[in-house]
Amino acid sequence: MTAAVIAVGSELLRAGRSDTNAVWLTARLAGLGIETVWRAAVEDDAPRIARLVAAALADARVVVVTGGLGPTDDDRTRAGLAEALGEPLERDAATEAAIAERFRRHGRVAGPMQFRQADRPAGSAFIDNPIGSAPGILVEREGRVLAALPGVPAEMKVMFDASVAGRIAASGLAGAVLARRILRIAGRPESVVEEAVGDLYATPGTDTTILSSAGLVDLVLTARGGTAGEAGERLVALEAAMRERLGRDVYGTGDDTLAAVTGRLLAARGATVAVGESCTGGLLGAAFTDVPGSSRWFRGGIVAYADDVKTALAGVPPEIVLAHGSVSEDVARALASGARRACGAAFGLGITGIAGPDGGTPEKPVGTVHLALDDGGAGRAVRLDWPGDRDLIRRRAVAVALDLLRRHLLAP
Amino acid sequence: MTAAVIAVGSELLRAGRSDTNAVWLTARLAGLGIETVWRAAVEDDAPRIARLVAAALADARVVVVTGGLGPTDDDRTRAGLAEALGEPLERDAATEAAIAERFRRHGRVAGPMQFRQADRPAGSAFIDNPIGSAPGILVEREGRVLAALPGVPAEMKVMFDASVAGRIAASGLAGAVLARRILRIAGRPESVVEEAVGDLYATPGTDTTILSSAGLVDLVLTARGGTAGEAGERLVALEAAMRERLGRDVYGTGDDTLAAVTGRLLAARGATVAVGESCTGGLLGAAFTDVPGSSRWFRGGIVAYADDVKTALAGVPPEIVLAHGSVSEDVARALASGARRACGAAFGLGITGIAGPDGGTPEKPVGTVHLALDDGGAGRAVRLDWPGDRDLIRRRAVAVALDLLRRHLLAP
Repeated sequence: MTAAVIAVGSELLRAGRSDTNAVWLTARLAGLGIETVWRAAVEDDAPRIARLVAAALADARVVVVTGGLGPTDDDRTRAGLAEALGEPLERDAATEAAIAERFRRHGRVAGPMQFRQADRPAGSAFIDNPIGSAPGILVEREGRVLAALPGVPAEMKVMFDASVAGRIAASGLAGAVLARRILRIAGRPESVVEEAVGDLYATPGTDTTILSSAGLVDLVLTARGGTAGEAGERLVALEAAMRERLGRDVYGTGDDTLAAVTGRLLAARGATVAVGESCTGGLLGAAFTDVPGSSRWFRGGIVAYADDVKTALAGVPPEIVLAHGSVSEDVARALASGARRACGAAFGLGITGIAGPDGGTPEKPVGTVHLALDDGGAGRAVRLDWPGDRDLIRRRAVAVALDLLRRHLLAP
Repeated sequence: MTAAVIAVGSELLRAGRSDTNAVWLTARLAGLGIETVWRAAVEDDAPRIARLVAAALADARVVVVTGGLGPTDDDRTRAGLAEALGEPLERDAATEAAIAERFRRHGRVAGPMQFRQADRPAGSAFIDNPIGSAPGILVEREGRVLAALPGVPAEMKVMFDASVAGRIAASGLAGAVLARRILRIAGRPESVVEEAVGDLYATPGTDTTILSSAGLVDLVLTARGGTAGEAGERLVALEAAMRERLGRDVYGTGDDTLAAVTGRLLAARGATVAVGESCTGGLLGAAFTDVPGSSRWFRGGIVAYADDVKTALAGVPPEIVLAHGSVSEDVARALASGARRACGAAFGLGITGIAGPDGGTPEKPVGTVHLALDDGGAGRAVRLDWPGDRDLIRRRAVAVALDLLRRHLLAP
């Protein structure tokens, strides 16, 4: 089952604002087993509201509109709904009387403006607002539910839960239950992951979305079912099929970070790590120490940005820098070893590279990064040469360094 | 002049997500004097993308779409655009050759999936992507501009500024009645900044928005005018009034970062800095080295997470740790001095604190952070005790450390 959510209000389109009502509704609808296929924020303009409501009715079975139901001139949702539905606005006599009575009770007289809140498109019903003055509007036609709620978050939320969720359930639209899981993947570009598991996207009763960011890939798995059990079973089967193909490329699920997973592996064997960083300037240490409790397995490190600091603090022999340049496997290995020894850690990770925008050469273009792991033995080394901007190159190098250690800790 | 913005990506509709790209574009379009009349986030589905793009073309003169331009099966923006425009997708031979060449250069072979990025609707043009693989798509027809950009924020932003903003201006769609400036402020909480300048928000012909994040505050100033000159004059007057009240709390404007501004001050006096970090674990070094060209003034540093690493690498006397605890002014000063001397820098910055969630005590609760600056003389020290989560406490500590050095460099 599908939904579209429309937030009405010119203020939502001002710089720096985002539409938190729509985000809340997306989550609530998901809880009813309804997938939001799009959401929009639109200014207070009846023709534009109408065009989006019409598009929503074409695209989804459930449409929720918030905002624009107040009594002032710039409250245009009533007019927009009427236009989208092709129905005239009618004044509801009972609501008109209730408004007049409410004002009388407060010693005031309702004007023409206030009575606008008694208008609704022909064929629609009002939704009671238990905590404010603007009623909502409910339309059910051709197997679809359209609900318009006020933009005040407290009113919108209580009215959705009290009146709209029940109508959706009663209409039979809240059929499926959704189960969702995120698989987190390191060490493979998006296209390689997709080649490995792309055919599983078509698994009946499931949807998969692939996302990538700075060298890491997420697969978002969603399974539908008539019951939570059925959705859960489908999800477990899809996850198992993907894990079989991806193996150790899957480093975690849900909110797992690569640093936290690597830290857990270190803790499990009572080992510690130290870092020797040049181009990442502390970003790898920052990633490790972003994990609560990292003091159990993270010792510290050396940020060796200047070449003579590489020598003075990490003990990188100046002749290696002279022979191979500061961006080289030998220097990465020396940074890893220097950090490991200086900090008394079981493992050392070293990173040196050219993050740009300047400093590239034909042999070592911007994006060249050497990474090394020192385990007290032969260790490991990796060279990257992917282009990108400074931020991307640095974040990707951190991900690869973390993954280098993770895979080493998993190796038999 | 009007715009509509559409963000494509099923992940944007997941619970808790909001579409920051669309919010950024709204602000950028406002800077061009263009009002965004609606924005939407839509899942990766070609017919739904097409329906929203068609509605956008009916509602607005400028349409910007982000996301869904990658090479994988669920990148549906190309198909959606073609459907909305009623044009077939065509493969561009030059782009196809460029993709093949890029893969060859990296020793790989491009597959059918990668070549999808050479497809665009007939009659459209490609927009160059200087930092990623997905080109954008530009359509100009019937006085309207439609631009599709990748969803990766860094790529979207650089491509909008480099290629789309100019096309909009050249098409005569930009109203050019708004002037905008961001004032960046450090060292004062949002409420204090607001008390200082809040009455200026009401300056006729201007709007001011205040935003704060991890110890830093931004004032977004917008001035309107019949001409660019008029808007510019209002902006200059408002900025001057605010600067008079905020003085050195204003560290920069526009895209200035505190690290970049501090780095410029260091470069101006030919000085260098080194860092000694405990709870921030490398985040301060990462902030300095995020600035292109930082090797001119950033030497390196020590990440001293474990207490014995503080002693071994930064020369923090163990008796100081015993007497005052590792989170103390004395240890922050010793970290600053140790880093300064070990790296041969003019200035050293030291940070030690309790970022939580564990490790707090009644005397030193989570959020207690000591920072110190060593300039070879008396130096400076600061103690923070603001609550927050681990990430906030660490990022705030970095901002305060940078600001400590900035103010020291500004002092007469």
